[in-house]
Amino acid sequence: MYDYLQSNFSHDSSPPFQGVPKTFSRVVDLCSFDPQREGVPPITFLQQVLAVCFYPELLSDENFALDVRQRARRLIQSCEGSSVGCYTPSSGLVYIQHRIAEFITRRDAGVPTDAHSIFICSGFWRTLTMMTKLLSSSEGEPQNGVLVPLPYPHTLAMVLGLAGIRSVPYRLREDTGWAMDLEELQRAIRTARGCCRPMAIFISNPGNPTGHVQNRKSIEEVIKFAAAEKLFLLVNEVDQHSVHGSGIQWVSYKKVLFDMGPKYWEGVQMASFHSLSNGLMGECGLRAGYMELVNVDKEVMIFAETLLNMDISSPVPGQLALDILLNPPQPSEPSYDLYTQEILTNLATLTENALRAHDFLNSLPGMSCQPAVGGFYVYPRVDLPAEAAGVEADVLYCQELLEEQGVCVGAGSENGNTGGEYHLRLDPSSNTPTRKHALVRLGAFHLRFLDSYSCGPHLETP
Amino acid sequence: MYDYLQSNFSHDSSPPFQGVPKTFSRVVDLCSFDPQREGVPPITFLQQVLAVCFYPELLSDENFALDVRQRARRLIQSCEGSSVGCYTPSSGLVYIQHRIAEFITRRDAGVPTDAHSIFICSGFWRTLTMMTKLLSSSEGEPQNGVLVPLPYPHTLAMVLGLAGIRSVPYRLREDTGWAMDLEELQRAIRTARGCCRPMAIFISNPGNPTGHVQNRKSIEEVIKFAAAEKLFLLVNEVDQHSVHGSGIQWVSYKKVLFDMGPKYWEGVQMASFHSLSNGLMGECGLRAGYMELVNVDKEVMIFAETLLNMDISSPVPGQLALDILLNPPQPSEPSYDLYTQEILTNLATLTENALRAHDFLNSLPGMSCQPAVGGFYVYPRVDLPAEAAGVEADVLYCQELLEEQGVCVGAGSENGNTGGEYHLRLDPSSNTPTRKHALVRLGAFHLRFLDSYSCGPHLETP
Repeated sequence: MYDYLQSNFSHDSSPPFQGVPKTFSRVVDLCSFDPQREGVPPITFLQQVLAVCFYPELLSDENFALDVRQRARRLIQSCEGSSVGCYTPSSGLVYIQHRIAEFITRRDAGVPTDAHSIFICSGFWRTLTMMTKLLSSSEGEPQNGVLVPLPYPHTLAMVLGLAGIRSVPYRLREDTGWAMDLEELQRAIRTARGCCRPMAIFISNPGNPTGHVQNRKSIEEVIKFAAAEKLFLLVNEVDQHSVHGSGIQWVSYKKVLFDMGPKYWEGVQMASFHSLSNGLMGECGLRAGYMELVNVDKEVMIFAETLLNMDISSPVPGQLALDILLNPPQPSEPSYDLYTQEILTNLATLTENALRAHDFLNSLPGMSCQPAVGGFYVYPRVDLPAEAAGVEADVLYCQELLEEQGVCVGAGSENGNTGGEYHLRLDPSSNTPTRKHALVRLGAFHLRFLDSYSCGPHLETP
Repeated sequence: MYDYLQSNFSHDSSPPFQGVPKTFSRVVDLCSFDPQREGVPPITFLQQVLAVCFYPELLSDENFALDVRQRARRLIQSCEGSSVGCYTPSSGLVYIQHRIAEFITRRDAGVPTDAHSIFICSGFWRTLTMMTKLLSSSEGEPQNGVLVPLPYPHTLAMVLGLAGIRSVPYRLREDTGWAMDLEELQRAIRTARGCCRPMAIFISNPGNPTGHVQNRKSIEEVIKFAAAEKLFLLVNEVDQHSVHGSGIQWVSYKKVLFDMGPKYWEGVQMASFHSLSNGLMGECGLRAGYMELVNVDKEVMIFAETLLNMDISSPVPGQLALDILLNPPQPSEPSYDLYTQEILTNLATLTENALRAHDFLNSLPGMSCQPAVGGFYVYPRVDLPAEAAGVEADVLYCQELLEEQGVCVGAGSENGNTGGEYHLRLDPSSNTPTRKHALVRLGAFHLRFLDSYSCGPHLETP
């Protein structure tokens, strides 16, 4: 592949940012996760049920399968005033809270779930913002802190910073596929205690942007660590439905916590986040997600409800769609076959594209990519010289890639400063020809960049 | 009516808060505005268009009128990736911004509108919160302040307070139907300058909760005042479609500003707010609204966009519904007749109920109610003795009304402290038998309360 690129692309090294004519007609965004925009088709069952919910006259339209109409009828009845046009309670529709609780209990093989501990909100970041308000509520010094993975989801630092919370990073081990490392957690908590009051630890599982999936042993270690250090667990589990690595099993933090027995189950506080935008539906436009609080003090729960009541109910269509995401058609129902086929197609596409991107990126000189086995990002490391004056080397790389080839990828420094190690963040999850070609354009740029930077004006060599 | 109540209701004066059995089977909420929950039917055109947008297979279903399918086709095409399942730009879909701009220009008889000045967001309070961040951004003392009407919308003080902004009240004149008063504005700004740095003035037109509608002369006075005092105009115009007073014309602040000529048009900065939850559709569950910024400094606009970009796009169904709210079917289109009939029915219901509530409340001793000519609230004054220990008299009144009769109304003190003058906030906008009966129950309670309070244990006489 490398040879192919060398022979088929002209290595035009005209300086960037000059307003020169471009060789591309359209910018391809390879770093924003938005599957339907990239051609991943929506799920028919979801489309149909929501159409009927919006226009209940369709309840008697036999062109819609019986389970579509039955589901829509139940969802309409669950709305205040039996209409999607009404406000809901601030924490969400009571029926949907119960349906989410049913899903969690089924997923976790019987672990009990209290529907009152489920807070429906318009997406992951909104619920996380609410949690940061809870964590930042104490007055005075020292500043509260949260242990965050390095690399972290690229908007995490901003959300914590806005709440006045200090982020203290713990490094994930790239050499073992971005695994969590207990010694590193212990180093991080010592650092934290020197500069703030650590309150919580944030974990993404599957990893964002790393694509790692933790095994049960690793989760147990983190839970024991959190228990010993009295840290609240903030667990981003939004990609739980999109685990695609061969033989990889995802298990929830809550399930592991329960299985560890009363000492932990009754002692460790946790928030688990989920989102409609992720999963294999990729319904980003409806804005819905939920947070489950586990073991949280009663008084904190009251404060959480008060905070939520200062917001108005999240949009109803998204709340209804959560039911469909989490409680899909069953084998006995007429929509089951099509639903299953669509979901499996989306999963197969994701799997194939993550593998293809991984192999391609690893084939490039100066680039190495750990396998991504969950979620939607790959996060290759790219060998770059030290930072140029005022600009991180990876940021410069991304800027030039955009200027030269019209391909937009995320600079790893947005996911936290890894001190001279550089990465790129890509979402290869759809397989349109445009996106396939964008990877090739990235490869061509990469070769040109490697050729030129050591003697070029942009970057200093290390 | 008063006699009817005296003879037909038993005046049970058992003390409240005792857990005794209730004489009612269900609490009726007379203070939350949520028309569809109270039986106001949704608008068929909106239901149909959104159903087709969710399930585009329906584009070929001839059971839907041609204009429904055409509108849905345009809206689907306006979405990123031609799907309601995709994120939108943070300020909203570009097409919808332009459609809102078309509406404003048409409404204001040709006053120019820049689509880039339109920020779509999930409801009035979300956009107002964004504006408060702009107004509170300066560092250090003195604290920034906003002039607010007294009474004000009942969540306004919280929103300003959370942003660290000082609310400085200007009283509306109840004796002239809650009109704005220039002398009072001048008194308020002097007060403000003594305690903070006044940045803006907040106005509700139509008034919330007063139901007043400003005439052009009054708006001109406010604009001249804002210009002289260099105040930013924050104009809540969410109820502009629900003006129901006989002979009352509503005109936008922007239109008046434009008509006042370049001195004002080029000098006064303004934000106008609108919402899908209000209007005669009452689509509260979709969560959508917009803010138009007029004359705002370029640098502030950039800051506004940056703030918005920290949020994620608002839900797509609500954005699409804004187009339908603001650009309804035209006379040549097949859906026009039904649409018009439904909207006029909702308007007639609102008009009739506001009048009926007004007349009924005025018939009660110790109660007086100014005419409400716009919006969804009536705001009667109720003569109560001075506050009891720790509880405002109107709050106690509302608590006892809820306990005794299961009727929930808003205490006027939530709309600002008017120093010993007490009011109630009611939304009488639907006419279900339950709500009609709730008014009668309120009347019965009122008579009992008047009888008992002067010698009862709950309130001190003045």
